[in-house]
Order: sequence, then C-alpha cells, then structure tokens
Amino acid sequence: MRALDRLLSPASVAVIGASGDARKTSGRPIAFLRKHGFQGRLYPVNPRYEDIDGLRCYPSIAELPEVPDVAVILLGAERANQAVAELAALGCAAAIVLAGGYGETGESGIRRQAELQAARGSMRILGPNTIGLVNVSERITLSASGALDMDALLPGKVALVSQSGGILGALLSRGVAAGIGFSKLISTSNEVDLDVADFVDHLADDPATAVIALYLEGLRDTAKFTRAVGRARAAGKPVVVFKVGRSEAGASAAASHTGALAGSDDLYSAYFRQLGVIRAETFADLLDIPFALASGRVMQGTRVAILTSTGGAGTLIADSLGVNGFQTPPPGAETAARLRALDVGDQAVLDRNPIDLTLAGLQPEVMRGAISILLDSPDYDTVISVVGSSGVAQPHLMADAIRDSLANSQKPVLAYISPHAPAATQRINGSGGVAFSAPESCAGALKALVLQGSFARQQSGQVGAAPSAEAVALADLQPGPLDEARSKQLYETFGIPVTRERVVADARQAEAAARDLGGEVVLKVLSARIPHKSEVGGVALRQRPEDIGGRLERMRDEVTAQVGFNPEAFLVQEMVSGGEELILGFIRDPQLGPAVLLGMGGVTAELFQDTTLRLLPVTLDDARTMLAELRTYPLLDGFRGRPKADVEAAARCIVAFSDMALRLGERLQEAEINPLLVRPQGQGVVALDGLTVLS
Amino acid sequence: MRALDRLLSPASVAVIGASGDARKTSGRPIAFLRKHGFQGRLYPVNPRYEDIDGLRCYPSIAELPEVPDVAVILLGAERANQAVAELAALGCAAAIVLAGGYGETGESGIRRQAELQAARGSMRILGPNTIGLVNVSERITLSASGALDMDALLPGKVALVSQSGGILGALLSRGVAAGIGFSKLISTSNEVDLDVADFVDHLADDPATAVIALYLEGLRDTAKFTRAVGRARAAGKPVVVFKVGRSEAGASAAASHTGALAGSDDLYSAYFRQLGVIRAETFADLLDIPFALASGRVMQGTRVAILTSTGGAGTLIADSLGVNGFQTPPPGAETAARLRALDVGDQAVLDRNPIDLTLAGLQPEVMRGAISILLDSPDYDTVISVVGSSGVAQPHLMADAIRDSLANSQKPVLAYISPHAPAATQRINGSGGVAFSAPESCAGALKALVLQGSFARQQSGQVGAAPSAEAVALADLQPGPLDEARSKQLYETFGIPVTRERVVADARQAEAAARDLGGEVVLKVLSARIPHKSEVGGVALRQRPEDIGGRLERMRDEVTAQVGFNPEAFLVQEMVSGGEELILGFIRDPQLGPAVLLGMGGVTAELFQDTTLRLLPVTLDDARTMLAELRTYPLLDGFRGRPKADVEAAARCIVAFSDMALRLGERLQEAEINPLLVRPQGQGVVALDGLTVLS
Repeated sequence: MRALDRLLSPASVAVIGASGDARKTSGRPIAFLRKHGFQGRLYPVNPRYEDIDGLRCYPSIAELPEVPDVAVILLGAERANQAVAELAALGCAAAIVLAGGYGETGESGIRRQAELQAARGSMRILGPNTIGLVNVSERITLSASGALDMDALLPGKVALVSQSGGILGALLSRGVAAGIGFSKLISTSNEVDLDVADFVDHLADDPATAVIALYLEGLRDTAKFTRAVGRARAAGKPVVVFKVGRSEAGASAAASHTGALAGSDDLYSAYFRQLGVIRAETFADLLDIPFALASGRVMQGTRVAILTSTGGAGTLIADSLGVNGFQTPPPGAETAARLRALDVGDQAVLDRNPIDLTLAGLQPEVMRGAISILLDSPDYDTVISVVGSSGVAQPHLMADAIRDSLANSQKPVLAYISPHAPAATQRINGSGGVAFSAPESCAGALKALVLQGSFARQQSGQVGAAPSAEAVALADLQPGPLDEARSKQLYETFGIPVTRERVVADARQAEAAARDLGGEVVLKVLSARIPHKSEVGGVALRQRPEDIGGRLERMRDEVTAQVGFNPEAFLVQEMVSGGEELILGFIRDPQLGPAVLLGMGGVTAELFQDTTLRLLPVTLDDARTMLAELRTYPLLDGFRGRPKADVEAAARCIVAFSDMALRLGERLQEAEINPLLVRPQGQGVVALDGLTVLS
Repeated sequence: MRALDRLLSPASVAVIGASGDARKTSGRPIAFLRKHGFQGRLYPVNPRYEDIDGLRCYPSIAELPEVPDVAVILLGAERANQAVAELAALGCAAAIVLAGGYGETGESGIRRQAELQAARGSMRILGPNTIGLVNVSERITLSASGALDMDALLPGKVALVSQSGGILGALLSRGVAAGIGFSKLISTSNEVDLDVADFVDHLADDPATAVIALYLEGLRDTAKFTRAVGRARAAGKPVVVFKVGRSEAGASAAASHTGALAGSDDLYSAYFRQLGVIRAETFADLLDIPFALASGRVMQGTRVAILTSTGGAGTLIADSLGVNGFQTPPPGAETAARLRALDVGDQAVLDRNPIDLTLAGLQPEVMRGAISILLDSPDYDTVISVVGSSGVAQPHLMADAIRDSLANSQKPVLAYISPHAPAATQRINGSGGVAFSAPESCAGALKALVLQGSFARQQSGQVGAAPSAEAVALADLQPGPLDEARSKQLYETFGIPVTRERVVADARQAEAAARDLGGEVVLKVLSARIPHKSEVGGVALRQRPEDIGGRLERMRDEVTAQVGFNPEAFLVQEMVSGGEELILGFIRDPQLGPAVLLGMGGVTAELFQDTTLRLLPVTLDDARTMLAELRTYPLLDGFRGRPKADVEAAARCIVAFSDMALRLGERLQEAEINPLLVRPQGQGVVALDGLTVLS
C-alpha cells in the first residue's frame, strides 16, 4: 500500500502530544476522530495521561503497540522534529506536523524546517504548519480545524487541496452551511515534503472525488504540477484553482520590452488555461464552481432560460448573465406553446425570458413541468430557476422539482435563491441540484460549465517545455546580448523571415549596400551594447543611396555623444512597410519556465497591454488562438476596410520562434522581435528588428 | 402633514380586501402590522368577515369609521381601481396597490394602469404591482412581503428604495441574517404616481436614515431624480445604486460615430458619478456598501492594515485589496514597536502586513490593543481584522474589540469573517462594526469609502442641462445634416478652433484656394448628404496647388460613381499635422438627456472603446478629468518621449463644445468633431472635421 493511501486512509493513527482537554487544539484531533466515527485503531501519546476519554494513552512513541500508519504530531516545532525522527526510524508511513515556527517565520524557522526534512528520512510529511487533512468519504479526520466542531460531516464529490489551513476550515464550514460536501480536504501549507501536486496526482485515482479544487499561494514544482493535472484531466476530473498573488508585478527583464509587458499573474493565467484548469475569479467561486462541475454536466452553448415566479430577481439574473456574455432569448413558438399547456393563469409571462410563472410557480407540478419543458427545449443550453420568498417557508418545493427534472436531461440546472433561505439552498444542493444566492455566482458557475465543455472537446495540450533533444549548440556565441544583425541571423536559421540587410563600417560601404538593396533603405546603428537604438538617435528611415553616407556620419556623432563610445558598425536594411506590427517575445519565468508573449505593436496597444502569453511549446493551433485573443485582432482581420493580414504566416512565425527558444535551451535568456511586420494576406511576415540575450 | 409623511407614518390604516387567513397574501399585512407592533388604528375591509383576529372588519370603504391616512389595497386589478376611486373621493392621503396585471403585462394592463391613474385624483399611489413599504424605525409594515415573517424587525440607518418588490424582500431577509438593519424599505414597482425620486427626496429629511440604497430598473424622470439626489447629498446622505440593464447596447446614432461608442449603461455610470452616487457592482454590494457608509466613516487614503490570527485568510484579503488598487504596506517602525509592546509571543509577525497575531489574537485585550494601535497609526487609513475559526465559538470576541476601538478614531474598521460564522457577523454588525464574509465585499466597501471621501471633498456638481436662456436661434438652418464647412463655421462661432479652408466648386477655384492657403492642402468632397467622406474616396491628403485641379476631377468621378449623384462642392483645407487625435461628440440620450463623449482617436483606441462621457453641462474641471480618464491619456502626457500635448486647450475646447450644445438647445441632434487634433503644448487644438445633425 502506498504511503499516500496510508496517510489518507489509515487503519491506525497515533496522536503525539494529545491532550485530554478537547477545548485545546491538542485535544481536538482525538475528539474529532471519535465524534465523526473513525473506525481504526487510535493511540494517544502523552506521558502526562494514563488514558484520554477512555482510550489508553502511551507515554512515548517507543512504547506504541504497533507502527501506526499515520502520526498526527501536536508538539511544538523542536519536539516535533524529534518525534519525526523517532517515527521515521520505526517505519511509520506518514506524519502530519501541525506546529508553526518553520519556514514561514524567518531564518531560524527555515533552519528548523531543513532539520525536519533531514529527520523524516523516507517517511512522508504533511506540513509543517498544517491544519491536517479530512477524509470525509471515510470519516477520518486527521485535523485540529475548529471547523470540525460541526454536528456531522457532509460527504460530496469535491476534493480540496489548500496551501492554507485556515482556508481549508473556512471552505469546510461554508460548504456545510450551503449543503455542499467534500470528499477530501487537505492542507499542505509549508510543503516540506508532500505538496499540492502529490495530492492532485493521488486524487486523480480517488473514486470518491469527481472535481479537484485548489487554493494556491504559489507553486514549487510546476513540471510535477503539470503532470498531476494531466492525470486528473485524463481521469475526467476538472481542476479549479483560486490563486492569490494576483497583483504581483511581472519580473522586469533587463533589455527587452517583453518582461515589462508580461505580468507574473498573467503568466499563471496562461499556464492554467493551457493546462485546462479553470481559474476561480472570486473566493466564493472556489466553492461554487467545483460544486457545479461535480454534477458532471457541462454547457454546450451560452443560451440560458430563466424561470421565475418573482419578476425582480429574474431580471437581476438576466442582467448578471448579460454582463457575462450569456444570451437569454425568448422561448421559441413550440416551447412557449408547451409552457402554455401547463395552464398557469393569465398573469404568467411565457413569451419572454425571464419566463415568469407568477403564483402558479408555487404549484409543484407546474414548476416541475416548466423546468422539464425548458430542459427539453432546443432553445436553451441550461435553466436557472429562481427561488423567491416562498423558498423560506417551503424549502423542498424547488428541490423536488429540480430533482425530478434532472433525470431526463444532460443539461445543467441552477437555482438562484433570492431571499436568505439557507434551508432551501441546502435542500437543493443536497438533492442533485446546484443553488447559489449570488447572481454573480450563477454567472461564474455557468462560465465554468461552458469552459469545461470546451476543455472536454479539446485534447489536453502539452505544457511545460523539456529541453529539446536536438538542442542547438551556441558554443560559438559569447554570453550577453547579440546585436540586431546576429539576432536576426540566428532567427533566420529557425525559419523566421527577416529583413534583407548589410553590416557596414562607414559611409562608402553604406552607399554601396543601399544601392545593392535597392529603393529606400533604413540605416541603423549596430551594437550589442545599444539595445534601444531609436532612443539614442540610432535609426534613420527612408534613406536614399546618395544621402546615406552623410546621414551615417551624423548618426555616428549623435550616437557617440549619447552613449559615450564610438559604435562598432551600422546596418543598412531594406525599407519594408505596409502591414500591422506585432511584438513577439520570449521570457523565462523563474517559476513557470519559458514562455512566449505576443502583443499588438504601437503605443496605444501597449497602454492597453494588449498581449497574450503561452508557456512553451506552442502549436500552430495555439498560435492561431493567441492571435485571435488579441483585443486588436480585428486590425489583422480587415477592420474598417483595411486589407486582411497574413495571419497564417504570423502563426507559423510564432511556432518557429517557440521552437527556436526550445532548441536553444537554457542559454537563451531573452529574445524579442519588435516589430514583427505582418503583411497583407499571401505576403508573409518579416522581422524588422531583433534582440537576443544569452547566458 | 404631507401625503408622504402620512404614507410612511400613518396613524390609521385601512386594509382593503383583508383576509382572515394569515397564510394567504391577503392575510399577511394585518398579521405583520400587529406582529411587529403597529400602534395606530387598523381597519380591515372585507364584507366576508365580521372581524379578523379580534379586529372589527368593515364591509365596505364607505362604512369606515374615519378617513384613513393610508389604504393597503389587496384586491385584484379591476376592483382595486374601483377602491382607489372610492378612497380618493373620501380624501384618503395615499393608497398602496399590490395587484399585478397593470403596465407590466402588455396592452390591456397598460390601459388598466391609465384607468388607475385617472381614478386616483389627488390621492398618492404606491405601486401598482408593489409589495408595499416597511417603516422599520416606527415598526409600521405596510407590506405583504413574506420576508416580514421574521421574529423581529432590525432597525438600521439604511433606507432602501427598490423598483422590485421581490428584491426588497430579498434584501430585507439577507440584512437580518447578516445583522444589517434598515430604516425604511419601499417598493415603487410600476410607479404610476410615486417614484424612486419622490422617496429619495423624502428620505433626505428622514432623521432615521443616514444612507439611501436604490435598486433601479430604469429612471422615468431624470431631472427629478437629479434634484432629489442633490437634496440627499446636501443633507450628507450618501446614495448607493444598483442598476440592471447593464448589458443593453447604446442607441446607435444615424450619422455620427459617437452614438455607437456611447453605451447606454456607460451613460448611466457617468450620470451617477456626476451626481455623486456610488454604483454597486455586485448585488451583494447593494447591502454591504450602504451599511459600511452608514458608519459615517470614510477613507482619506488607500492604505489598509490587515490584522489576523490566521495566516491564509489575511493573505486572501491582501490579494483582493491588491487587485482593487489598495496598498498594504508593512507597519512603520513606531507602529511595529507599539505592537511588540503588546507582548504577543514570538510566533507573531508584526513587521509585515498582514499583521499576524497568531494565537495571541484570541486574547481580547491583545486584539483590542492591536486594532487601536493600527487605527492610531499614521501608516494606515483603515483596519481590516480577520475573524478565524475562533469566531464560531466566540462570536463576541472581535465584536467587543472593535466596539471598544472605534471610540478613539474616525477611521473605519472592517472585519472579514473567514468561516461560516453568522453569529460573529451579526454581533459585529450589531455593535458598531462592519463585517463581511466575502473578500470582494471588503474591497468593494473600502472602494466606496474612498469614493465617498472624494465626493465629500468635492462640491456637488450641477448635472442635467436646462435649455440655456441665451439659446441661439438656428432658424436660418434647415433640419437635417450640415456639411463639414457649415458645421465648422457653427463650431467656430462658439470658440472652437477649426482648420482654415475654402469651399470650391471646380478645379480652377481649388487651385486658387490651395495657393491662397499655402503649403500642402487637403481636398475633400463637401456634401451634407455624405457624412463619411473617406469611405467614398472623398478625401485626398497632401495636395500641391499644381496637382489639385486634376485630383478634384478624379475625386468627382469616383465619388459620383459611389454615391450616385454629382457632389455639390469641394473643400480645400490647410494640412495640419503633428499631435494626437481625439474624437469629441455630442449625443442626446432619450432618457438621460444631452451628453458629451470624449475618446482617443485611431482604430486601436476605438477597439478598446477608450471613451468617457459626461452629461451637460461640463465644467473646465470636468473636462480636465475627462481627458485624464482616457486610458490612453499618457499619449497626451509625454509618453515615451513624445511632446506633451496642449491638454489645457483640449479641455477648453470640450467646455466650448458642451456650451455650444446647451445653447443650441433641443434642435441639436448630433455633433461630432472627429478628429480633434491636439497639438503640442502652447499650440492649441484644431477641429479637422465636423458633423452636425439638426432637427
């Protein structure tokens, strides 16, 4: 039996430092285990007691009658480390360390945590600084969370893994109040050993778990997380995450623009989207969305029927749905005719949406019939039924109607509870329905059901780049920045079209190069030490061969005055115009790894931060989606009569850039094409500039 | 005594169509009045009863022993109209008509509502289709809302006026559950007579009301609403509104671009902002924000101290605040030293924010001391204290600490309730504190406290334009569109700088005009029937005098081919370049009246709908704020080394445009300067084009 199975489903549990006072934190685990019906063998360890609540109490770990599957350690940090060493020596499978005062509290704590790591040997550790775990499906509570002081556990299909113990307790208690149960709740906290990914991986195989909810403060090992989520998705289990740290600024890269444009949190959003993980926007969503997904129903479209017997709340729901991009069309003729056949009186409004049954909605058979008709209707992808003030006195009314309607449809049904009516909410949530009391929760859950529907249709993408087997040798290139010409030579070897150009040293060579290239040309200063050429007067557009020599001399003077050294060389480049400018950049995030940023060029788009991100590798489909995700995509797509741009060539270029980054491997620190000119359809793209930094 | 005083605080109430069965809707009003302690005289009217619950019941209105202050009419629509006529004839002050089947249900209902209007004479009507009103401060419940089936009313300082009866009931019951009371709740619904503005006006003088919350579906008389809100604000009462219809598209104007850019809901947002009304973004905000404002405390800055004894929830709050633009700086040295003096143990984290007291936070004197120190600290504008799982067992702990800390500070204090702990929430909200259980509610309430602080500092602006006394006569202009030249002549008379230009008929005149203007010029087709010149080939830039004649002939051919008629004239215009292009437009909203739209020019800004709106009149300060509100404002302000634009001239131009619109009065339907070129500082602005439609 694997250690994680023993940790989550132990046959025997030792509680080290257990107290006989159930009001104390150290008294809680045994009290909760017994209260909620743990059936295994339970061993309190504490030299100060003979017995605890009738259980024999052992004076030390050494004197335990068997090696327990799990030890819950309630001692302070120093003594906890000692206990871990003893338990590891015994061959205990796993220990849960509740003490704080480790990595979260500064230097001495970090040292203490390293000692804990050393002490555990091959024993698995949950924590330290954890509130423990709750296996609701088997009624095993290995936790001191005050939230367990509830009458009875409420089983459900959602597993929660939280990097905060307090959040675990909050969601557990909020869930019970709303009639939303869990299968497992696990607080990983400091993650000296077992981390979120370990539990996602484990829960992928847990038959009691249908959906995995995660509360994240940060990821330590993204490759492992990626694999674990992949396993969960392959097992058909949606993963929903709420991640804090949303206002953290991006890592600003030294030379390129890309770093400043790519926020660290934006990269997490891109990562989750690529993984097929749903990101919860509000904290309530972290309870609501997984619960809605646990029904196993998704939305195949965005058309919602709103069924109400109280006008105002129906309008409120319609408003919230409209803001979130849903459609609420009126019922078609056939659906309206079927509704009329329910005989709901002449005040009912059946030809508009919200569909208002008025008082007739209080008759169970009418409500049941109306929900069934709307679920059956080809006009709608889901039904939201509104519970008005009658839900306070008759909490079963809507619950029964929804339960009866669900059997004949695969579409989801939501209920919106307008007054404060916890009994109605619990009743609906407990009988197969999904009820929320915030209009925004309804909209958020439906968005997730649409997104999950699209995830289910698309294949799980590969995310997280491994160093390529054909990694290219860069041995001949020095660490540090490359100049524009060398950058573009490098890009060209990977199939990225670049400007035709010549490196020149002086006016005479410049004139020859200009005549050779033909037409008007661009003159640029060329130096690996000058990443931002135009800021120092190092770019001149529309040069004619006869003028370029003089212009070069003036540029040399101006640039030298600005940067304080004589630039090594100049670049004479064909003048390409006509098209839209993009920025295509590479960044290496310290946490999430290599990624590509795509943005619309120009200062206006920059002010709106019109960018999108993908972790490597990027497929051609990904690249097309990235382009379409730009809010300014219409500029590439014939907006206001302009020619359509060569979007396919742009997509191929993004893939080539991504592949290049993979094959260059760890030495590539920064790469940026700014601008990448996307010419009209059939004319391709061309990199007008290039910036590369190697390590 | 005014009718509204009698309606809200009646000494005598007749209930027409009262039932003796308290479970029926028609039995509720009397049951609720007596249950909640109505002290006045109560007259049931129903020929089918001798008495109702011991009260003498009258067979008809005619047989009432006195003319009641208020009649609550529970009859169906047809009989309700008859009762209204009888009561009006008696001289009753006001009637509340609960019946539906009026204006909300189609044609026959609209006719019935007109009959009700005719029947009321000078008697005031609340409704029809209303759930009535609740005067909590005087325990007078003139309502059939099922939400009144609660044990006791909870008085508070927030008055709610709702255009939906169901929403009134929902907020009343949600409020009680959260320990949030009301002063008055009024459902206006169909508003055949009394509307939201009447009650806002009345509540401005109500000593029991400190804050007014509004649930709006639409406004019928904006001028009246504007005046009423002005009175409430003058009385120091914040107004908070939740308005549905947020996804409705704007009215698209025929000729100008402005209509498409100005969403109808955006205009409401602008209107509320101009009025100094806070707009609630989520439905929960409509309960939370007024309650937070009722404390009478506002925020003078955006720095928040987060005090917690449970790490995870503190981080969650910090995250939510960060997303909403708040700062959570660590305590300064002096504040940290004062916190350390509380002796909170060595695990407490006092030099970071969230400030984590860990277990020491469960000691009342420590929590009280810490809140007081943070409120007293110059480092912070408010304190949010987090209630963890201890709040379930000890709901009084934080409530007492907050209550004791409030006396010595004018700063607001919020509590975030992490677990499901309704008793703690109620306790805090009932003892002077403000507690919420969603992180987003905390952030939303603090945003409102900051906004209210800024409203309080600024003078109440004048909103809603009266036709100007000096209205300009346009008698010499025909209804319909003006051509560009006439539009700009009109604008120029109001002080708006326009391009120098000449109207020409043929090639010869064009060449002369070009030589006269000097330099390169622009040639445009000139016709009131061609609003979008460039789409039909009617604009040619950078023309030299020697080429312009030929160009005019080609333009005439091309335009004629496109539009099917020979254009009347052409315009030769100085070529002005250098600067940023804005769009400045006028719209007349059918509901809210005349307004000005400002947007950044160019397709990219258009895709982002980078616009801002103001109802007329617009002051110079308003105009400056409008410019600064553009997300692309940095383009005018020296972004990336470009010259600073003449923002002051742009602001003066916006005011001139607004004044022009006011003085032109009702005949002005559309006006648009697109583009308005804003030149570098000191060089002013110039209207490069103009489009006007008169009625």
